[in-house]
Amino acid sequence: MQENINLNWKVGFVSKKDTFIGEWYPATVPGAVQLDLAKALNYGNYYYAENWKDYGWMEDQFFTYRSTFKKPILDEKQQCFFVSKGIDYEFEISLNAEKIFYQEGMFTPVKLNITSKLKDENELLVKIFPIPKLHKLPADRTQTSQSVKPTVSYGWDWHPRLVPVGIWDETGLLVQNQSEIAEVDFSYSLDKEMKTAAISTQILGTMLQGCKYAMKITDADGITVFEKIAHFSAEKESFTDSIHNIQLWWPHDQGTPYLYSMDVQLFDKNEKLIQQKISKIGFRKVLLIMNEGAWDEPHNFPKSQSVDPIQLEINGRKIFCKGSNWVNPEIFPGIINDQLYEELIDNAIDANFNLIRVWGGGIVNKDKFYELCSQKGLMVWQEFPLACNNYEGSSHYFKILEQESESIIKRLRIYPALSIWCGGNELFNNWSKMTEQSLAIRLLNSQCFKLDPSTPFLATSPVMGMGHGHYVFRDPQTHKEVYEWMAEAKCTAYTEFGLPSPSSVKVLKSIIPENELWPPKRGTSWQSHHAFKAWIDNTWLMPEMLTDYFGEAKSLKELVDNGQLVQSEGYKCIYEEARRQKPYCSMALNWCLNEPWPTAANNSLINWPNKPKPAFYAVKNACRPFLASARLKKFKYTEAEEFNADIWILNDLPHLSEKGKISIKISTNTKEIKLLEWQYDSLPENINLAGPTVRFVLPAWETDRFKLLLEVEGHPEYNSDYTFLYETLKLKKKKANLLNF
Amino acid sequence: MQENINLNWKVGFVSKKDTFIGEWYPATVPGAVQLDLAKALNYGNYYYAENWKDYGWMEDQFFTYRSTFKKPILDEKQQCFFVSKGIDYEFEISLNAEKIFYQEGMFTPVKLNITSKLKDENELLVKIFPIPKLHKLPADRTQTSQSVKPTVSYGWDWHPRLVPVGIWDETGLLVQNQSEIAEVDFSYSLDKEMKTAAISTQILGTMLQGCKYAMKITDADGITVFEKIAHFSAEKESFTDSIHNIQLWWPHDQGTPYLYSMDVQLFDKNEKLIQQKISKIGFRKVLLIMNEGAWDEPHNFPKSQSVDPIQLEINGRKIFCKGSNWVNPEIFPGIINDQLYEELIDNAIDANFNLIRVWGGGIVNKDKFYELCSQKGLMVWQEFPLACNNYEGSSHYFKILEQESESIIKRLRIYPALSIWCGGNELFNNWSKMTEQSLAIRLLNSQCFKLDPSTPFLATSPVMGMGHGHYVFRDPQTHKEVYEWMAEAKCTAYTEFGLPSPSSVKVLKSIIPENELWPPKRGTSWQSHHAFKAWIDNTWLMPEMLTDYFGEAKSLKELVDNGQLVQSEGYKCIYEEARRQKPYCSMALNWCLNEPWPTAANNSLINWPNKPKPAFYAVKNACRPFLASARLKKFKYTEAEEFNADIWILNDLPHLSEKGKISIKISTNTKEIKLLEWQYDSLPENINLAGPTVRFVLPAWETDRFKLLLEVEGHPEYNSDYTFLYETLKLKKKKANLLNF
Repeated sequence: MQENINLNWKVGFVSKKDTFIGEWYPATVPGAVQLDLAKALNYGNYYYAENWKDYGWMEDQFFTYRSTFKKPILDEKQQCFFVSKGIDYEFEISLNAEKIFYQEGMFTPVKLNITSKLKDENELLVKIFPIPKLHKLPADRTQTSQSVKPTVSYGWDWHPRLVPVGIWDETGLLVQNQSEIAEVDFSYSLDKEMKTAAISTQILGTMLQGCKYAMKITDADGITVFEKIAHFSAEKESFTDSIHNIQLWWPHDQGTPYLYSMDVQLFDKNEKLIQQKISKIGFRKVLLIMNEGAWDEPHNFPKSQSVDPIQLEINGRKIFCKGSNWVNPEIFPGIINDQLYEELIDNAIDANFNLIRVWGGGIVNKDKFYELCSQKGLMVWQEFPLACNNYEGSSHYFKILEQESESIIKRLRIYPALSIWCGGNELFNNWSKMTEQSLAIRLLNSQCFKLDPSTPFLATSPVMGMGHGHYVFRDPQTHKEVYEWMAEAKCTAYTEFGLPSPSSVKVLKSIIPENELWPPKRGTSWQSHHAFKAWIDNTWLMPEMLTDYFGEAKSLKELVDNGQLVQSEGYKCIYEEARRQKPYCSMALNWCLNEPWPTAANNSLINWPNKPKPAFYAVKNACRPFLASARLKKFKYTEAEEFNADIWILNDLPHLSEKGKISIKISTNTKEIKLLEWQYDSLPENINLAGPTVRFVLPAWETDRFKLLLEVEGHPEYNSDYTFLYETLKLKKKKANLLNF
Repeated sequence: MQENINLNWKVGFVSKKDTFIGEWYPATVPGAVQLDLAKALNYGNYYYAENWKDYGWMEDQFFTYRSTFKKPILDEKQQCFFVSKGIDYEFEISLNAEKIFYQEGMFTPVKLNITSKLKDENELLVKIFPIPKLHKLPADRTQTSQSVKPTVSYGWDWHPRLVPVGIWDETGLLVQNQSEIAEVDFSYSLDKEMKTAAISTQILGTMLQGCKYAMKITDADGITVFEKIAHFSAEKESFTDSIHNIQLWWPHDQGTPYLYSMDVQLFDKNEKLIQQKISKIGFRKVLLIMNEGAWDEPHNFPKSQSVDPIQLEINGRKIFCKGSNWVNPEIFPGIINDQLYEELIDNAIDANFNLIRVWGGGIVNKDKFYELCSQKGLMVWQEFPLACNNYEGSSHYFKILEQESESIIKRLRIYPALSIWCGGNELFNNWSKMTEQSLAIRLLNSQCFKLDPSTPFLATSPVMGMGHGHYVFRDPQTHKEVYEWMAEAKCTAYTEFGLPSPSSVKVLKSIIPENELWPPKRGTSWQSHHAFKAWIDNTWLMPEMLTDYFGEAKSLKELVDNGQLVQSEGYKCIYEEARRQKPYCSMALNWCLNEPWPTAANNSLINWPNKPKPAFYAVKNACRPFLASARLKKFKYTEAEEFNADIWILNDLPHLSEKGKISIKISTNTKEIKLLEWQYDSLPENINLAGPTVRFVLPAWETDRFKLLLEVEGHPEYNSDYTFLYETLKLKKKKANLLNF
């Protein structure tokens, strides 16, 4: 059988290639050279204050990892490989002073047969080149537009300029038999009834002729549903067959994310087991079909095309996708561990999300991420590492993109959670200027068509009919609030929309030095951590808007509470309004779920590394499969104004639901007024219901806020509430008078 | 050297496959079985009256072509092939009672080595299967949605149901050396200055090892600009090189369509010339880039993508494309000859067109078409044979589509005129229901990317931003005239728009029996020839609209004259308005240039086979590179109404033009009134100029029409005129009174 051997590593650096490295520091693999250096040189934590700026000089260094090891014991049929799942980004490998490998690209695994080159004592060097930069200036994401390096680390409105390099995924020696299976290509198609899977398998490797293999598929109870035992008659074997009465894989809110085990064993000529590959597989059919009503458009001559389809259909069932955008959960992908993946994915599922968009500015995740999503029933929209650039493409770029995309597709296509391939982020907008004609997009479309044709491919997000944005609660130009711009929007899918809030006080205290903490100012750690000048001037903190709504905040806590309330109410509005627009609308994904480091203010639902904000819980409520909901008009009311709201039931349940009764109330801290009682009928699966509109003239109250309560009799789990600001006429006049002086 | 041997053919048919054929009729090859049968059985001309209906029974027959021939004389190194450039659509080939080949697909050439099977006397059979029909009913284009058979012949609004089958392109025996070059893959890329072509060549074939080849490229003066002489060291040879100081290929209105000759010679081991392949090549760089101003859209959040690019840039120069849609010039492609291609292409160029869209409902043309377009400088937008269906695709369909698209791309990519590949016609509209997700489109995109990446690929027409339609002068619902709906339209490209007219009296008399000729009625040959119920009920004759404008026509000639005037004025309006919308708009192609048989009424500019209608000359004028033009408001005026028009200069010239003076006049048959004189300045290349608006209150005139004249001093070739209908107040009142009784 195979054996994995870990190596011990040190790291050193020089500013000129191939010059003498005087000093070696302990290195952690997987990891990043920056973290090793920081530890050795006693740097401050990169997420505290402006410490990240200290790391900038490392961008242009040549780093070398060094490992010395004794030759492993090998029998005459065994071979020794150096293997790595990922080295970031351009690198050269030498063994015993001989250069044996070069690669550009962090997503293509390395497997080098070093058997013949081994001595008793060996020195292995992995030289990492400086980070790719198309040009010296501007020092921003455009530097990556000729490389397949995730562009986010070159600086984003929620990510500092801090560009990791190094060995970022599992790496070491592998001892195995010279006969080996390199690849098991497994694909299937489902019949119309989705009961039978026609499977197609190809097993490839080296020195396989005459060896026996056994492929077995077992269900979740361990019962074998398929078995094939045969000898290789050549270096590869292909066969097709059928499996009947399959259990389908479903996203968690639609059914069971049912998985099978696929076990491929290889035996040598003496019937000895020499290799085993175990994967989890699932059977599902996923399509992007036209959104309901979208074929009726456009109406007039001259007539253009209908919009692009984005209604996801899984196993023949149209579903509304609720979810979020996933960004790197660490600045340094090398330190993302299984536990962090699991906790974040558990939170995504807890938020009632069924789909997560792995945004193209970041990395393609490690295997564990896709394993967990498949196991837990969270669909994945996976982008290639292109974002907000015009990847015009030299032949060199296309070569690397072809190599990297092939590695990515071949690695991920086995996971049933993988539901959409996408070329990258916002490529067809004027800040990127790519189009359907761009050869990089045609290359990726072509690669996905060749290697995984049964998974949909989107050129980018957004494509026609879909929307990105807005990213503020109230538009600074038009002064339209989220309630208004969402009611006016008509998109087939909202695949990005953001509302910022300050991070919690505890997070802020952990990243901003005490002397800068209050009041928040531009030019301090607040700004470095994206509270100011991140997107537009006052994002993401937006203190002026908060002051306008709430008055001047008297403390950090008050500022944070105000900002987090606005974020929570705003996100509820968007998710619920997008759901009201079903079935024309079929998807709502906020920007963003998580963050790669602790921000001072950001659109995320979860603070780094995994601390939910209040908005997380608001969104979780807005995404319940069944809930009472209200379409609202605005956030702040004055005495004597009419308050009104349209009452709805939002229903994504995949089955018939029961009838019931909703009480609609207005409450202040001291009073509760019942406005209406609505008896609703039972609802068919996946259909919303529009109810009555309530109207109420607001009396004079001693309060600065009030709530709308929707209470479902006997089902508190369907209840909803919404918070509004309030002021008396007297107060309003007083404020107006103050402004006039 | 090679030798082509023609064969003599007969044709017979049976209704059940492989049953005895009792009777054989003379066959013309290339041609169509229907034409052979019609001739033998004394059928009436298929384009007269309703004779086409007599041919319907042939759809479901099995036809067999038979040729008997003596074995050609071969030396020991020679081989004999059966070759065909195209057999339509599904067929089987037998030689001396042995089945030797089967193929589905009319665009993949056949080349069969029959040397070893030859006897002294030989019988070759080509059995043609019944036409492909996905289902029996409905008997319309949907029957073709699982085949790569041009769908137009299954019935269209200007094409009867008459589906050709048979040997449709050059076919015979070929005697050649056993060493042979099968393929010369030649491609190039131009440097930034477009002075140097980096060429890349691959020569493939059989038994080439040790043979010498010579590849020579000569310019239009016969001067050699590149030569490579070498021996094959394997069965294929690849090389790259550069050619400096190249002359670019331009469309005729932008420069010279400069062609080079590429001559590849093959010599056997005794230095004897055994094969020669000569092609015309040209160097050009063609791109589809974003239309000017289109990156600024969309404006609001949530923000979708910008529209798809359709601004054609050739050799670094943005040009406005003027042209038309090309349909099969014959119902039976087998009888299209070189002369017809040449005459129609000459007319397209005479009309000032620089681009022709080969519409996906029809065939991919024979080589001569692309040779002529390349030689004469007419750019070609080439569609694959998909139109107005949802080609959902079984694996069988994808296999044929892959085979056929590969054959088409490899055959046409050498022609410099080939400027745009396109998946097919109107696939992303609700009458077809394909989308970017459709695997057939992804397959075609992928094939073009693999085999001809330097030519743009459009998924379909229209894509987002482009428009198809309208197809009537006045919308029957909104009553908006072409002047109004074009002024309201905002498209990046108008790639189809049609205005019908009756055919000329001479054409009508040649197709409609005398007793049906006047007045035109539904249910007669008029309807069979598309005057009624072709698209909407009264298209394409639209007699009610003509009566509304002109009063009841008193004769066939009057009806034809009225209809042809409306078509002419309408087409002028559209082409000129599209040009005014430059640079946001970049293309105007009317529906359609020609027709496959004589219609009674149609949107074409040219009656079958090549008889220009008056609209042809109107369009020719509207497409002059430089002209005086007017934006108009409507077609019919009443006394005392204000007539107004915005005066423009439309200018597509690729160079600076001189200043000048335009006189704007109104004329009736008896009077001429000068309204204004406008002095315009010199214009930069490819820039229009908006001039003054003229206004004039129409007096009482004894006339039923008047004209607007734009006269350019010293340059009558820039003059334009527009015709309007007119009535006095008295007449109008009289008509209104009549209506009230």
